[in-house]
Amino acid sequence: MKFVTFKDSSGSVAGLLDDTGTKVVPLNAALEKMEGKSDLPATLKECIALGDKFIEKVHSLKDWLSSNPGREELFRPLASVALEAPIPRPDKNIFCVGKNYAEHAIEMGSKEDIPEHIMVFTKSPTTVIGHNETVLNHHNVTAELDYEGELAVVIGKKGRAIPKEEAFEHIFGYTIINDVTARDLQARHKQFFIGKSLDATCPMGPWIVHSTAVENPNQLDIQTKVNGELRQSSNTENFIFPIEEIISVLSKGMTLEPGDIIATGTPAGVGKGFKPPRFLHPGDKVEITIEKIGTLTNFIEK
Amino acid sequence: MKFVTFKDSSGSVAGLLDDTGTKVVPLNAALEKMEGKSDLPATLKECIALGDKFIEKVHSLKDWLSSNPGREELFRPLASVALEAPIPRPDKNIFCVGKNYAEHAIEMGSKEDIPEHIMVFTKSPTTVIGHNETVLNHHNVTAELDYEGELAVVIGKKGRAIPKEEAFEHIFGYTIINDVTARDLQARHKQFFIGKSLDATCPMGPWIVHSTAVENPNQLDIQTKVNGELRQSSNTENFIFPIEEIISVLSKGMTLEPGDIIATGTPAGVGKGFKPPRFLHPGDKVEITIEKIGTLTNFIEK
Repeated sequence: MKFVTFKDSSGSVAGLLDDTGTKVVPLNAALEKMEGKSDLPATLKECIALGDKFIEKVHSLKDWLSSNPGREELFRPLASVALEAPIPRPDKNIFCVGKNYAEHAIEMGSKEDIPEHIMVFTKSPTTVIGHNETVLNHHNVTAELDYEGELAVVIGKKGRAIPKEEAFEHIFGYTIINDVTARDLQARHKQFFIGKSLDATCPMGPWIVHSTAVENPNQLDIQTKVNGELRQSSNTENFIFPIEEIISVLSKGMTLEPGDIIATGTPAGVGKGFKPPRFLHPGDKVEITIEKIGTLTNFIEK
Repeated sequence: MKFVTFKDSSGSVAGLLDDTGTKVVPLNAALEKMEGKSDLPATLKECIALGDKFIEKVHSLKDWLSSNPGREELFRPLASVALEAPIPRPDKNIFCVGKNYAEHAIEMGSKEDIPEHIMVFTKSPTTVIGHNETVLNHHNVTAELDYEGELAVVIGKKGRAIPKEEAFEHIFGYTIINDVTARDLQARHKQFFIGKSLDATCPMGPWIVHSTAVENPNQLDIQTKVNGELRQSSNTENFIFPIEEIISVLSKGMTLEPGDIIATGTPAGVGKGFKPPRFLHPGDKVEITIEKIGTLTNFIEK
């Protein structure tokens, strides 16, 4: 199952992508048709917080939709709706794991940059944009805008001190993040936050794939293309810290909550890794593809 | 004017401290008495987002309250209410400026640690607790829990690329933060976030003092006591980066929003600065006093 958020006449709407990947159904409107009323909250973030109850509801909706071809009128062509990030406004900063692929750590410095312990920084919620939305170029603020394709985990169940063995029970699903970074600011301000939190520098989406559809998130191909040219190509099996370890370490003394988003780090091949560096320019197209998830596409503001 | 949030039978309530500093009035209940109804939102965070309209309303309420001694029945003794943090659940992580007093930078390392550019990290919203609430000791996770007394700025008006000259127009008010830090985690994980974001390690309060009551926030005495012993004593005139510069640099490419909280850094005298270090222990009492603001008191979990 793939969950989307899209713009409707009534504002932001939570929706479900159909199995062909070409149509979306607005969850609340469809449930209202099915049950005469809908008690689902408006946003996907709030739906996720309902836990299993939400997934059960979606299963019965899917059954109802498929049992009568006439109900297809509820679907809209994916191409006709404007997607937002699946969680357009997270309730806290996005957690980001730094240098979680050895080859990326090396391209950013040397072997000594391979971390022994998980490194986490954050991106402000004001960075988030959706699939096909425009990344601001911030040309007055940075001359070194760079891409970072990453698998992101969406938390579904609250927890603190989550043991590795139970980490996957706390995951609602997976999405893609482009952790767009101003390299000059990142270096100048030492702690990464400022260089990572320019407005509209966190494309997320196109959707959240439910955890049941991804058997092993620690073994997914990940690729980033800039203007069609392959720049990053790896597999999440190259994580230094696999997802269960990230969740376990991060939650040791800090409660993770439904709707929390954890970007798991980027593989080698970022712009700064090239000699000379190949930063992003106005008009560039960035596409990140992750196996079993999809492709997140964004353009840099002209 | 001093604004509080306190626990009421109906949940969290936004309130106003009276001029004697001994009584609080719940804003919504008082406005309902005054106008027959109240259209103020429930939380102080949402009230702040109303901007000048909110302050005008509070002024007329104050006039009405003082014009009739009988209206004193609306007040409750401060000592009888349980304060929460003035913003118990911020909409994003708390921004924290690192090493903003030269002597603190030196005690944490050497003169080379004095930053040339503002350093910013964040604390998760799950860290926030109020005056007199308990700081968790996290003894299973850290052996080096430390205090950091700090002046905090609360943003009142949205803005990006705010020039220094306009920075103060964007401030709603000021409060106190104890940026409790797990020094071992801070060092182990390189980026500060993990060591700064353990649950219940960001005491905030006791209230927000409105900006009109603090003529120059870059010149306030600040002191921290542990079990009555003076540990930190400085003045915000020792900031490396004054408040207008913090706001200007932080907002260069990132929108600041009403309710955003910026902790401005801590002076010398933290536990780690002593030889040998003097970290916090279960049962310790930490009091941070800032001129014109007040005193924030918290105990470490026993």
